[in-house]
This record gives sequence, C-alpha cells and structure tokens, in this order.
Amino acid sequence: MHFEHTPRARALIEKVSAFMADHVYPAEAEYHHQHAHAADRFAAPPIVETLKARARAAGLWNLFLPDAERGAGLTNVEYAPLAEIMGRSTIGPECFNCSAPDTGNMEILWRFGTEAQKARWLEPLLAGEIRSGFAMTEPAVASSDATNIEGTIERDGDEYVINARKWWTSGAGDRRCRLLIFMGKTDTAAEKYRQQSMVLVPTDAPGVRVVRPLTVFGYDDAPKGHMEVAFENVRVPIDNVLLGEGRGFEIAQARLGPGRIHHCMRLIGVAERAVEAMCNRATERTAFGRKLAEHGAVMEAIAHSRMEIEQARLLVLKTAWLIDTVGNKGARAEVAMIKAVVPPMAQRVLDRAIQVHGAAGVSQDFGLAAAFAHTRALRIADGPDEVHRRTVARTELRHGERLGWHTGAEEGLR
Amino acid sequence: MHFEHTPRARALIEKVSAFMADHVYPAEAEYHHQHAHAADRFAAPPIVETLKARARAAGLWNLFLPDAERGAGLTNVEYAPLAEIMGRSTIGPECFNCSAPDTGNMEILWRFGTEAQKARWLEPLLAGEIRSGFAMTEPAVASSDATNIEGTIERDGDEYVINARKWWTSGAGDRRCRLLIFMGKTDTAAEKYRQQSMVLVPTDAPGVRVVRPLTVFGYDDAPKGHMEVAFENVRVPIDNVLLGEGRGFEIAQARLGPGRIHHCMRLIGVAERAVEAMCNRATERTAFGRKLAEHGAVMEAIAHSRMEIEQARLLVLKTAWLIDTVGNKGARAEVAMIKAVVPPMAQRVLDRAIQVHGAAGVSQDFGLAAAFAHTRALRIADGPDEVHRRTVARTELRHGERLGWHTGAEEGLR
Amino acid sequence: MHFEHTPRARALIEKVSAFMADHVYPAEAEYHHQHAHAADRFAAPPIVETLKARARAAGLWNLFLPDAERGAGLTNVEYAPLAEIMGRSTIGPECFNCSAPDTGNMEILWRFGTEAQKARWLEPLLAGEIRSGFAMTEPAVASSDATNIEGTIERDGDEYVINARKWWTSGAGDRRCRLLIFMGKTDTAAEKYRQQSMVLVPTDAPGVRVVRPLTVFGYDDAPKGHMEVAFENVRVPIDNVLLGEGRGFEIAQARLGPGRIHHCMRLIGVAERAVEAMCNRATERTAFGRKLAEHGAVMEAIAHSRMEIEQARLLVLKTAWLIDTVGNKGARAEVAMIKAVVPPMAQRVLDRAIQVHGAAGVSQDFGLAAAFAHTRALRIADGPDEVHRRTVARTELRHGERLGWHTGAEEGLR
Amino acid sequence: MHFEHTPRARALIEKVSAFMADHVYPAEAEYHHQHAHAADRFAAPPIVETLKARARAAGLWNLFLPDAERGAGLTNVEYAPLAEIMGRSTIGPECFNCSAPDTGNMEILWRFGTEAQKARWLEPLLAGEIRSGFAMTEPAVASSDATNIEGTIERDGDEYVINARKWWTSGAGDRRCRLLIFMGKTDTAAEKYRQQSMVLVPTDAPGVRVVRPLTVFGYDDAPKGHMEVAFENVRVPIDNVLLGEGRGFEIAQARLGPGRIHHCMRLIGVAERAVEAMCNRATERTAFGRKLAEHGAVMEAIAHSRMEIEQARLLVLKTAWLIDTVGNKGARAEVAMIKAVVPPMAQRVLDRAIQVHGAAGVSQDFGLAAAFAHTRALRIADGPDEVHRRTVARTELRHGERLGWHTGAEEGLR
Repeated sequence: MHFEHTPRARALIEKVSAFMADHVYPAEAEYHHQHAHAADRFAAPPIVETLKARARAAGLWNLFLPDAERGAGLTNVEYAPLAEIMGRSTIGPECFNCSAPDTGNMEILWRFGTEAQKARWLEPLLAGEIRSGFAMTEPAVASSDATNIEGTIERDGDEYVINARKWWTSGAGDRRCRLLIFMGKTDTAAEKYRQQSMVLVPTDAPGVRVVRPLTVFGYDDAPKGHMEVAFENVRVPIDNVLLGEGRGFEIAQARLGPGRIHHCMRLIGVAERAVEAMCNRATERTAFGRKLAEHGAVMEAIAHSRMEIEQARLLVLKTAWLIDTVGNKGARAEVAMIKAVVPPMAQRVLDRAIQVHGAAGVSQDFGLAAAFAHTRALRIADGPDEVHRRTVARTELRHGERLGWHTGAEEGLR
Repeated sequence: MHFEHTPRARALIEKVSAFMADHVYPAEAEYHHQHAHAADRFAAPPIVETLKARARAAGLWNLFLPDAERGAGLTNVEYAPLAEIMGRSTIGPECFNCSAPDTGNMEILWRFGTEAQKARWLEPLLAGEIRSGFAMTEPAVASSDATNIEGTIERDGDEYVINARKWWTSGAGDRRCRLLIFMGKTDTAAEKYRQQSMVLVPTDAPGVRVVRPLTVFGYDDAPKGHMEVAFENVRVPIDNVLLGEGRGFEIAQARLGPGRIHHCMRLIGVAERAVEAMCNRATERTAFGRKLAEHGAVMEAIAHSRMEIEQARLLVLKTAWLIDTVGNKGARAEVAMIKAVVPPMAQRVLDRAIQVHGAAGVSQDFGLAAAFAHTRALRIADGPDEVHRRTVARTELRHGERLGWHTGAEEGLR
Repeated sequence: MHFEHTPRARALIEKVSAFMADHVYPAEAEYHHQHAHAADRFAAPPIVETLKARARAAGLWNLFLPDAERGAGLTNVEYAPLAEIMGRSTIGPECFNCSAPDTGNMEILWRFGTEAQKARWLEPLLAGEIRSGFAMTEPAVASSDATNIEGTIERDGDEYVINARKWWTSGAGDRRCRLLIFMGKTDTAAEKYRQQSMVLVPTDAPGVRVVRPLTVFGYDDAPKGHMEVAFENVRVPIDNVLLGEGRGFEIAQARLGPGRIHHCMRLIGVAERAVEAMCNRATERTAFGRKLAEHGAVMEAIAHSRMEIEQARLLVLKTAWLIDTVGNKGARAEVAMIKAVVPPMAQRVLDRAIQVHGAAGVSQDFGLAAAFAHTRALRIADGPDEVHRRTVARTELRHGERLGWHTGAEEGLR
Repeated sequence: MHFEHTPRARALIEKVSAFMADHVYPAEAEYHHQHAHAADRFAAPPIVETLKARARAAGLWNLFLPDAERGAGLTNVEYAPLAEIMGRSTIGPECFNCSAPDTGNMEILWRFGTEAQKARWLEPLLAGEIRSGFAMTEPAVASSDATNIEGTIERDGDEYVINARKWWTSGAGDRRCRLLIFMGKTDTAAEKYRQQSMVLVPTDAPGVRVVRPLTVFGYDDAPKGHMEVAFENVRVPIDNVLLGEGRGFEIAQARLGPGRIHHCMRLIGVAERAVEAMCNRATERTAFGRKLAEHGAVMEAIAHSRMEIEQARLLVLKTAWLIDTVGNKGARAEVAMIKAVVPPMAQRVLDRAIQVHGAAGVSQDFGLAAAFAHTRALRIADGPDEVHRRTVARTELRHGERLGWHTGAEEGLR
C-alpha cells in the first residue's frame, strides 16, 4: 500500500495543474463576461473553444477514456487526481473534453456501440465537435427506482417509435448538442430488469421538443442547461438501439459506475477550492478586532473541512483502484459509499465557505453559491443519498458470519 | 405558564389563515406567471396590489405595528403566529403590508421619526403606496461588525453629503421604492458606538445609483431585489437625520431586535410549509415497492423536522413574550438565540424536504429551493450565526456564581 | 400565551431551590463518602433518610402526585420546574420522594389500585418507608415492542403462578425495596394488546430471585441498582392483579406518559447543571495563554448547549401543559417528541461539558460521566429514540389535507 | 498509488487474524471470569500470560517496534492493519506485547535510552516481564497545554529530587508495573520548550505513592488502572534522565506521534467490531413485525458507520505511510487529523451499536459500553480534539498563495 501516484499520473497532474493555472482560472472572469453579454444564453461562450483547442494541443484531451488510442488510457486511480484538478473550476472539465454528461455517453458508446454508431457519434464527441445528453429521468415517477420509468420505445417495422416526457436531460440546452441517449421500455412484459432499452436519438429528429430549462436553486446552468424534453412519436431506425433490446438497465449500470466516481472526483476539487477561498477570505477580513482566521469558529470550519476532504478523497481513490482491479461490480458497495459520502461532504464544506464569506458568499461575485447548488443537486442525481446508503447497509448485512461482542458476563454470573 | 393564544390573537389567526387559503395560496401560480411574463422584472406583478387591497379591506393590515392606531396594536407574542402564517407563502407578508425590510423601516420611523418625517415617509409606507430599503452593509468590510462601516455623512451647511458603496439593500430594486434609510459615519473621532448616524435618503436624490442586483444562489429576488447602491456626493437636508447625529448604532440595535424576530417568525412558517410539502410528496410517490412515507429514512426526516420546528417555535414565542414584558434589551440573549437557531433549523428542514422531492425539489416547480436560498442568506443577514452564538456564550459566562459538579471523590480519598 | 409560572409554582420553585442549596448540594460529597465506605453497597447511605425527613418537614414531599391530599395536587406544568431543580443533583429527587421508578409505581397504584392495594403498598411508598421496582423488560426479546414480552402469569385457583426472566428492574437492588410491579401475559390467545396483565409481587415472595446487578457503562447505580430478576413459580393471590386481567398494556401506557415526562424534566436539570459546570471550569483553567472561556470552540460548546436546553425545556413545558389540558392521549405525539429530543440533547450537553473538563470530566471527581451514563441509558429506557421518532412521523403523516409547495411553473410554461 | 498490503504484511494479517480467532476471542469470557473472581483486581488474570506465551511462540511479538532485531521491523503502514486487528479485542494488544502505554514507553527507550537504560528497562519490557507507566498529566493544570506542567525535578548532587502530583498514569495500577517515565521541569527559567525533562523512576522508589485509581465512566480499567500518583521527594540517580535535561518536550513530541497513531489504528478495530456486533444483533432481534436489520433507522446506522470507518481507516493508513516516508514532523498535520477524526468517529459508531443493542448495549454483557468509555477518554488523552483541530487549521492557514473563487462578476458589471 502506498499513496504516491505513478510517474505518468504525476506528470499529468503537473501538466493539468499548470494548464489550469495558466489558462483556465484566468479565463473564468472572461467566460462569465462573455456569457453575461451573449445574445443567446445557450450558446457556449467562444472562450470555451479557445481553451479546448489549447488543451488538445497540449495533449490534455479525453483523459477520462481508458482507451489508449482514442483517449489517454489511464486507470481510474490515475485519472482521479486529474478530474479533481479540472473540477476546481466550473469551466475546467469541458476544456479537456472531460465534462458530464458527455464523458458517460462517450464511455458507453465506446464500450457498447457498433462501428457505425461510433463513427457517427463517438468520433465527433471525442473531437469535441458536438455535445450530447442522457434522457432517462421522468417527472411523473420516482426515478431513483429505475424500474419506475415509463417512456416507451415501440417497434414499427424498421423503426422505433418513441414517446416520453423526460427531464433533467443535462446538456440538452447547448446549441452544439446533437445526440440524446434515450432510455425507455421496449417490453413491459419482460423480466423487471430486461424491459428497458437505450436508443440513440438525434436532437433534430421530428417530435423531439425541448420544453423548458429547469433551474437548480435559481441557476439554469446555461449554456448546457438541464432540459425538460418531450418525445412525441419520434422515429429512429432500429439500428439506433444500443447493445440490443432489453439491455438498457445493464448499460445504465455500466454508465453509472464511472459516472458517479467522476462526479465525486470533481467534487473533491470543488471542496478543495472552497477551502482555499475560505482561508483566503479569513485572512483578508477583520471583525471584532481580529482576523476572521483567528476566530475559533472559523478555525473549526477550516479544520473540519480539511479533515473531511482528506478522508473522502482517499475513499474515492480506493474506489477508483477497486474499479481498476476488481471491476465495477466488485466495487459496487464502494461506489455507493462515495456517492453517499462526497456530495454531502462537499455541501458542508461549501456551506462553511459561504458562511466565512458573509453575504458575498451567496452572491454571484464568488463561485461558492453556484457550486453549492450544483453539489446539492448531485445528492439526488444518479440516485439519492438514501438509496446509496441502503446499498451500503445491505452489502454489510450480507456478510457471512460475524463476531458479536458478548463478554460472557451473563453466563459467568448466572 | 400556558400555551394558548389570546382570544384576539386566535381570531386573527383564523382570519389570516382563511385569507391565505382563500386568496394567497391560490394566487401563487398567478404571481409567478405574471412575473415570468412581465416586461420589467422589477415591477411588482399586478396581483400583489389586488391582494393588498383585499387584505386591507379585511382589516388584515399592518398587523406588525405595536401602535394601536396606525397598526393593530398587537403584542409580539400575538403577532408571532400571524407572521408565521404569512411566512408560509413567499408572497404572503407583502399582501398584509408586513414584509421586510419595510416593517423594520416603518418601525423605526414610527419610533424615532419627527412628525414631518412620519408624514412624508411613514404614512405612504403604512398605506402600502411606496416601498423602502435599508442601506447599511458594505462590500468592502466585514459588516457583521457594525463598527467596520465606512460610508460617510459629512455636514456641509444645511445639508449632509453622503458617500458610500452599499450592497444587499433589499427592496431597492422595486420600482415603488422611494426611500433608503442610510447608515454611515458622521464623526469618526467619536466614541466607537457614537460615530454612526442614520439619514433618510430619497431614491431619486442625485448621486444615488443602483449599480446592480445581487443574486442569492441563482435568484435575484426581483421585483424587490438585493441591490448594490452607490452613493456619490448625495445631498440631503440635515432634517433628514433620524433621531440625531451619533444615534445610528442605537437605532440599528432597536431595529434589529424586532427585525430578527420577525424573520424568525416567518421562517417557522416556511419550515412548516416544507414539512407539509415533504409529507405530501412522501405519500404520493413510490420507490422500491413502498410509498416514500414508509421508508425509514423519510420518516426520520419528517420526525426530526417536526421536533426541531416545535422547539424553535416555542423559543421564538418565548422571546416575543420577553420583548413584550422586559423589552429588547432584556431579551437580548434570547434574540441572539433565535437568530442562531431558527435559520439553520429551517435550512435543515428545507434540505430534507428537497431530498424527499428528488430532482423536482431543486427546481422552479416547487418553492423549496427558493426558500432554501432565502433561508440560507438569513444565516448571514442581520449578523452571522457565529456572532449570535458568541453573544449567547458571553451572556452565559457573565452569570454570577455557579455550581460546579464536584463529587468530593477527590477529597474523600486522598 | 405566557411564560410565567403560577404564584403557587413560583413559591415552590423558590423553596425547592433553597432546599437544594441549603441541604442537597452540600450533602453530595457526604453521600458519596458514606456510600464509598458502606459495608453494603445496596444499603442507602444514612444521609438520604436525614434529607428526606427535612424535606418532608418543609412540606416538600410527594410533589409529583396530582392528588391534592396524598400529594401536592400540582399540575404537570407546575411540577415541571420543580422536577428540573431536583434533577440537578443525582440524589435530589429521592430527598423529595420524587424519584423513579417509585413515582411511576405510586401513580399507577393511586390511579388503578384497590383500597386494599393502596393501604398495603401506596401508603408506605408515599411515606418513603419502602421502595419499589417495575419488572417489565426481558433479556430475551426486543422489549421496545411491548407485545414481545414473554413472562407468564398463569391462574391456579386463587393464585397466579408467575414465571419470567426480567432485567433492568431499577430499584430492585435497594434493601428497602418491598414491591415489584410485574408485567406478563395472562392470555396469549387474547387480542394483541389484551394479553398482558400487571400483578403486584412482594420482593420476599418465594421464587423471586435477584440474579445480578446490571451496569450502565461501568456504574451499578447502587444502592438502587438495575437488577436482573428471576421469577420461578412465584405465587401471589389473584387480588394482586392491578385493574384486572388483560389491562396490563393499558396501565403501561398510562404509566409511561408521566414517567417519560418526569425523566425529561429531570434531564433538563441535569443539562443545566452541566452547563454551569462547563462555564465554571472554562473560567478556571488556562491553556495556550487564554482562559478556556475565551477559546472559540468552548464558546461554541456553551452557546449550543444553552440554545438546545432552552428549546427542549419549552417543549417539555408545553407537553406538560397539554397533558394537563387534553390528557395523556391528546399529548401522545408531544410525549414521543420530548422522549426523542431531551435525552439526546442532554447527552450532547454532557459530552461537551466533559470535553471542557478534560480528563477530569470522565472521572469520578465530577458528576458528569455518571450523568452521561444515566442519560445515555434513557435514550433506550421507556422506548428507544427511533421508536418515538416513528410515532412522531406517523402522527405527522396522518394529518388530513396538506398544502404542497407547487409554484405552478410547470403548468405555466408548457 | 495502490491499496494492497505488502506480502509480509498480508502474511502477518492472516497470522494475527487467525491467532485472534483461535486464541483471543475465545479467551475473552475466561478473562472476564478470572478477573471478576480475582482476589486482587490489579493482578492481571493468568490467562493473559498464557496468551502472551502463545503469541510469542507464534512469532507475533513486539510487532510495533520498527527495530528489526528487537521487534518486527515493520513500517507503520504494515503495522497499521495488525494493530487494528489486535484492537478488536480489549485484551488483544497486550497478548502481542503491543499495548499502550508500554509501546510508547518502549519506543522512546529504544530511541533515546542509553545502553544501561535499555538493559535495565527496555529488555524486560520487550520480554513482557514488566509493565510501565507514563507520568505526565497533572490534576492542577490544563495539561492539554504541555507547558502548563508544574512537577519539579531538582538536581541535588548525583540525584534528582522529584515532586509532583500526577494523574491518569495508565498502567500504574498493574502489579507488574516497575517503571514510570516522569515528565517535569528541570529549569523553569529556560526557554518555554526546554524547561522539561524526562526521568526514569522505578515504582518502588521511596516517595512514589499510588494515591487512587481513577474511573472512566465508572470503569477502573483494572488491572492496568489509570492512577493518581504522588511523587514526594523521590530521589533517582541523575543517570536516569532520558536523553538529557531540557529534552522532555522533544521526547514527548516523539512519543506522541506513534502513540497517537497506534491508538487510532486500534480504534478502527474497535469500530469494526462494533459494526459486526450491530449487524449481528440487528439480524437476531425482531420488533414491530420486522427484523431490526430491516428498519430504515438501523440501516442508516449501519451505512453511516461503514462509510465513516472506511474513510477514517484510509486516513490512518496514509498518515502511517507519511510517517514512514517523511517522518513524524512531516506528518504532523495528518497525525493531528487522525487524532481529531478517529476517536469521535469510533464514539459515534459505538453509540449506534449500543442503540441497536437496546439496554443490553449499555450493560456488562457486551463490550460496547466499556469500549465507548475508553474511546471517549481518547478524545481527551494525548490532547483534546479541539487542540488537534487547531493544529489542522493553522497548518491550512499557513499555506502560501491560495486561489480565491472570485467570478469577476463584480468587475464585469460595474
């Protein structure tokens, strides 16, 4: 057991950090400025493409993809610190073509797509030319239980006819979004986990209608957006099915493992930046005759944050290592753990950082409130905390024989 | 000691509840609709004036004002349940002309204003014809320590010349806002708590410039808005000083007592409504074969919320009773307590309600996320939690002789 | 609504406080000394009887009993502050003949006993001449669910034959204990809540065997003790049944209401004393150049404790008032709330007080660790926290129509 | 970075686990039985020596000592899982001669002792023939600030004359205890951290008097005991000084690093065993028609415990690795972190395990309450949580330049 990254990872950590320092952080204000003055909130500010080109040129591109040819061929434990560093800026991950939901979509296309599907969709996604969305959650049912999903995919000759009301299709607002990966039911009579299928739906297919953007604590997260999307008799060729009918649940599971851990890696970065901001502010401001940094309550906030981040990061890294060594299934309990641990942890750290910033902390002048909103939503997205904790408890209870802690006092004295 | 409201209060509780049920709750959707389609986000939707007229006609007007002629002449303990009920809807308090920051401003005008000041400002405020703001917090300093404030009020003949950069001047966005009560320093050489004065500044005075709206998480809270306001060589007659030079700190204290308790009363209502919504949702949705309401984690969320609300409400009521019987100063520790207790409590309840609602909870479809943002900000506004807890601890430590809990074991056995 | 006690209660508060200050606190060390040097740990130290005689002479006797002739005829809301004050000392309640489990036992004898039962058992208990125990919990089953109880009461002619293994029969260790109120099943075929009966069992009945004292953390709480008791073919006359066969569950409910609230009242006193001790220590000791009282973490501990106690006390008082006005049943949810709120609150306060005391806090030199152990056990006794929270949640979910918090955004924009 | 132990460590993990399963767990009841019936509470039950002989024969001896000749020559990261496994039983560590405070004492003798000191004290300690104590904490001052210590060591010719009142000298109760390592001041005029020295004091030196055993929540932890010890004109040769005069603080620091991490390693084992016991009990007992394991509140308790343990363990392992690679000083912040993280974590886990066990959980029938008491004390021993959090915060605040989280909104819009 040791806690040092591989030379390859260390070199990339240095490069990504330097890129963030040289290009990304300095561009944050410009990004906001461009976006604030854009004619179209859902068009990505031009600086994004500039940054993408630079990152690609620097060889910092598609680092998430385990494929050594198409991506960087990194293990999860190698990618973790990179995702963390990218996650320190809201605009970070996209610069490296490593942002959700595209990473998850690219991963399943890479894993399960036909050559034709890859050529049409995966290549332009890997090139950063188009963006994609994932249409699974529905407003009408508790989607934390994926078997509740009601959207239908009916076969009609060589086509599927798709009908559904989906929401929280993140990224579907982006003008560059061309593909929606749609999850629905092909066979409601099949076994519970074989009813679902995934189908590739071009955003310009007739019947696809973006209804409205949803907000997260007031943020519409444009240009990506979290969209409500109506699918009304949308027709796509049957070749658009991914992996085959009835395989939807299986793909969803495969997508969620890496998806969840990537979110957690990035949130560690979010929490780290919040601590930096908190320390910064605490040393700048004075109240009641002392720097905030010398107030006991502020020191407690900093210490608890540091201790929680360190622990959560290590659990994320261990989970990454388990995925690398025993696979998604073998790491199922750990993936559930980090998903139930990291977002609430980051929420607490951000809450403390906001408090130390005073009123500025909830405003648009700092990135804290927006990060809080995003983090809070991640306690629900990809399964709410409660569901993950249930998984953890069930795994624990399944273990075979267990030692109790009887002292024998009872027997000895009767 | 007993826990029943006076007949007068009970009658008003019934009336205000009925008004909320008959007029306010049903108007919430219309309010949002009007606002969403308004040409000017900072113009109040017309339905507000309709509701105000109805409430006034029903005799439910200015219930906050202890003055029996101008207001309802209620005690704080009588007003508490009414403020709570109004607080259950975001648009509730204003319908009854009982919304912040106007209540606080009206109260200090009523208490400390000259007859001329009352005629010009208090009367139209009480009539609901104009709105007002309170300009105290500054971006450049930790305003939790009021002595940090840097805005200047310099006398020049019969006028004061005012210069400052203020922010979080809530209500200053509203097109009906006519008055800003400005806090700044008239004499930086005076004793620490005698340097500040309050001056009445018409919003149309030359040099007053609304710089921008601040957001709370992603909400701009239009039409009221929380505005950053520049005061650049603003001139007002010296008659516009409130109570006299050097009395600013004293007025601030007088304003904060009732202001804080009113916020807390309303937040109890917010938390109550969150629990209702949480129970509603929990009985509507099913996951993993059972209603959410039957999941242990959801029941824990409901129980903790109920227990926390009950306790916090009683502390608010007791504090109200203390203000009624021993005054603001006598109730200082209790006011600090409720300010440090109620907003975090309401934040926790809202957080749980959001979680039970799933992704819908963070969106614009439910009032929870907006209420969360507002509540979170109240852990900073009027003094951050930490400052209030410091007040509580100091009061506790000031008590005279105290009993330890020595057992005498030490002496007995040596 | 007001928060002042009745003149009668105020007079008693003053008297009981004075008695505590004059007689009880000063006797604590002597009590421990006598107990430490006693030949028999389960014989009450003589000073207890001295204090009892003084309290009785002062008219401060049986204050818990609502009966104006046999007791003080106080309402619950009047008794609450008195129980709190008594509770500030471990030896306090017994001095006033107001200690558990005797108060609960006296109350049900008074309420449900025949004249003969009262003459034989209630009178000497009220006189403080004998002590009693309550034998309900069993080691073999989860007794939090009272229907699990397995002890048997079989009729044989004019006698009941009793067989059971009970434990946590508090008070049964005391040499003065003469009576056990036994709960068991008379009819396992009856309706679920009519199977149980309560029977009065003299401690000297053949077949009653005290097996061993249980410890709470490392305390045996001698002389009272929490005993494991075997009942082996114990025979008592059928006249010893309380209220009648099949009424056991009903009596248990009647006993638990007041029993739970009395525990909570006393725990408020425990928490208060812990705060005093914490403040005391914090002003006595210095670390890192400052009094502990000036360290932010200590101030936070004090403030949180004060705020939690204030809230919990008010909820206890309101619950007492509800029992007085609408009865045990009407106050069922509130009784569940205080039972789930007060012991955890007192545990937190004691935990903080221990921390401020450093190593001394966990030792025998201060009353904190023993109070912690006792308090921790009360999160299990009379029903664990979880069961009470379930009651609270269920009550909440049973309420009729509820307002949701829809904004109408969904409809408005589709 | 990877999370697998070295082959050497894995082999030892297997051996120590097997030894625990074959010898230690089965002996727990016997240990308690022997101790309960012993004539002398402070004589170690004979089974301890039997187990020690077996462990030594199995080559599982002095595994803590980095010295490859005298000990096992393991790194800290190798030793960590072994200490955890030993820690799962209260009697575990001593069986392997790896129990506190002897490990800490042996370590400093090994590191700083002269050959003569080693021959006289280290060898018999390593052989498990004698036991030792560490006399540093004093009742009269806040010993969390080591500079407060008042005990004196005055030179008189070839001897030191020692005077002090110490307490919490753990292990000094054991009849086999022969050595006390005493910390006191040799020069109160010296620089703050050069005033202290450590001196080796035989327990049979005239003037050494064990005053009394202290209790931890009612437990005296005999036979080791936590003793109050009076040093009255105790004379020892000047050769008994460790490392030299004025080096006491430095040795204390060197002792505390490993001491703290060893405590934390063992507590991970304590927490693990509590989870096992919790799961065991939850699957054995039924309430309200369902196994406890199916109640949501119990599942939450299990899940939170598992998640907290996993995180804390990883932080302990990383800290061990840091000590191995960059040394005690380089790992200073991490040592502070684990000391502030692990004991509160273990306390929470034990508290939940107790709750799931019901009343049995606080009693002598299970090891939970005793483990809780021990764990609670460790939040104070070797520095209270607050002091360690202060260290963590200060380290954090010392970092050089830090990135804030300004969005540029302010500048952009003005």
